[in-house]
Amino acid sequence: MIILGLDPSLSSTGWGVIRSEGARIAHVANGQIKTDAATSMADRLATLQAGLAMVIAEYRPARAAAEEIFVNKNPQSTLKLAQARGAVLAACGAASIAVNEHAARLVKKAVTGTGAAEKAQVAAMMKVLLPGITISGPDAADALAVAIADAHLGPKF
Amino acid sequence: MIILGLDPSLSSTGWGVIRSEGARIAHVANGQIKTDAATSMADRLATLQAGLAMVIAEYRPARAAAEEIFVNKNPQSTLKLAQARGAVLAACGAASIAVNEHAARLVKKAVTGTGAAEKAQVAAMMKVLLPGITISGPDAADALAVAIADAHLGPKF
Repeated sequence: MIILGLDPSLSSTGWGVIRSEGARIAHVANGQIKTDAATSMADRLATLQAGLAMVIAEYRPARAAAEEIFVNKNPQSTLKLAQARGAVLAACGAASIAVNEHAARLVKKAVTGTGAAEKAQVAAMMKVLLPGITISGPDAADALAVAIADAHLGPKF
Repeated sequence: MIILGLDPSLSSTGWGVIRSEGARIAHVANGQIKTDAATSMADRLATLQAGLAMVIAEYRPARAAAEEIFVNKNPQSTLKLAQARGAVLAACGAASIAVNEHAARLVKKAVTGTGAAEKAQVAAMMKVLLPGITISGPDAADALAVAIADAHLGPKF
């Protein structure tokens, strides 16, 4: 089964595609969709969506996964993040791909053994779990972590 | 100039299309795009986006407008609203339509004369400003109000 992990954000949405067969996991591809902060919100959201539509068309995932969203200390950041997430999830919905949502601590626990792992620790574990791959950046590493966690945690549809 | 006013929300996104020529404003169409709460977030966002894409294709607005978003008392409501808004704005961006954002109190002031107007007062003013029209519901009335306000306030791109 092909699983698409997503780490949505307005400036850089990470994505990671893995193949999960029983207990085995293999890397397929990963990347980051960047948007230009000098352009409008609508343009940036459309850029995220078009980029993700291309990823979905190329890798045809059976399902997608993302971390659950929450309101953080900075309301403006939360609003930007949630709007980016909306554009990203709509792209999945348009392709009839269900998006499985997992609590951030469950994702961290699934890939590092501890729900309190730092971001750098998650990225380091991606290189351990998927040896030899090139990771496009920290957002792509987070997206791969969500995909791997989803393979372990299973769908909650 | 054709202006598309938007009142995004996950359960029911209002839209209103007006024609603005100098100081004259005429109603073109309005409606509400409903989503089924029993379906997934991704499906609901995709429904909003597909519905809005049809509205844009039919009326070909020169620009769109929506109220500015803010974090309200209920964080979960805010997250749902922001994700819906992201899907809606992405549909505008995909069609190369700029979305003008106005503060809610400026929209109310533009259509009722007071920034503290109640929702019912805004809806009542739509029937005064656009006599004889049928309004699909409260979200469509709000969307028409944003479109009219945008005609008065002008673009802020």
